Amino acid sequence: MTSIAILLSGRGSNMVALADRCASGDIDAEIAFVASDKTDAPGLERARHLGLRTVVLPYREKGQATAESLLSDMADDEGIDWIVLAGFMRLLSPAFVNGRRGRIVNIHPSLLPAFPGVNAIGQAWDYGVTVTGVTVHLVDEKMDHGPILAQEALTIKAGEGLDDLEERIHALEHRLYGDTLKRLFRSRLTVEGRRIVFE
Amino acid sequence: MTSIAILLSGRGSNMVALADRCASGDIDAEIAFVASDKTDAPGLERARHLGLRTVVLPYREKGQATAESLLSDMADDEGIDWIVLAGFMRLLSPAFVNGRRGRIVNIHPSLLPAFPGVNAIGQAWDYGVTVTGVTVHLVDEKMDHGPILAQEALTIKAGEGLDDLEERIHALEHRLYGDTLKRLFRSRLTVEGRRIVFE
Repeated sequence: MTSIAILLSGRGSNMVALADRCASGDIDAEIAFVASDKTDAPGLERARHLGLRTVVLPYREKGQATAESLLSDMADDEGIDWIVLAGFMRLLSPAFVNGRRGRIVNIHPSLLPAFPGVNAIGQAWDYGVTVTGVTVHLVDEKMDHGPILAQEALTIKAGEGLDDLEERIHALEHRLYGDTLKRLFRSRLTVEGRRIVFE
Repeated sequence: MTSIAILLSGRGSNMVALADRCASGDIDAEIAFVASDKTDAPGLERARHLGLRTVVLPYREKGQATAESLLSDMADDEGIDWIVLAGFMRLLSPAFVNGRRGRIVNIHPSLLPAFPGVNAIGQAWDYGVTVTGVTVHLVDEKMDHGPILAQEALTIKAGEGLDDLEERIHALEHRLYGDTLKRLFRSRLTVEGRRIVFE
């Protein structure tokens, strides 16, 4: 079975959605631990309620290098196959990414390369797009930039407000992340330039 | 009836699609003339075959200011309501745009703000997106930047080649541009920030 570690900084709603599908056997993976850079991330509390082991990475106290080194050692010791970012608000260092290239995955609430960075849904809203969506991608050294595993579009409805749009984007994230990881854990990938081919 | 002028630099396939729908009465508009910055644009020849009047704007011989001045005078004299860009490869000057703000429309073969500029389909392909699309927008001073009138997404199929994708994007352009102009010519718009509301 695939072993994964989930990293989050916030509410952890993607983590909860993934944990449900792992627990039911729909996704053939085991969540070894849930880690956060924030001691008080609500997602950590939710993970504990789900019976998952949680880890606080000491970014604030000891800096990025130490925090990443701890994460890397844990991942090695426990045979983690994939590191799954789920609202993790730190950029991983080139050294860390290099050591696990093609083994770190992220989800972003826009159709990348449009609207990278924080508040992507609000950025899209302010730009006035009528189509936005969600992207699941491999992580590289740049923010929200690595090769794309999956995207799905969502059309903004006439008269729809930002709150409703956010809710629909989050629901799409929860579905697409699970669907993509399920497929990913059963496939081999080849990367041609930036294009990913599932075998 | 709405009177429009179409500007093109290339093959004019969007112009032909619009001309068909205007001729059939599906779009309630009349094409007063088709103009190009290029004497040898194939779209001019196609326009003449359709019985449309054509105009060469003397960008090359006399520069942008003179070419735009000629276009502006013609549009004024003939009571043109909308200037419709259809593969026109020149950026209109701020002065020209200011004089007809909210009365110039463009189509672009990507989901803006992703992949502005030339070769948008190839840019998207090289980036490895799995969703791309088409945008119809009002023209402002910046390239491929004005408020968005309509977008439609298109999912790249597994195993699809760039040629097939280009063909599907162009077919989507031809449909979406006509649909959007039809709606535009029957509506009043309000622009709230960058968001357009059809009344």
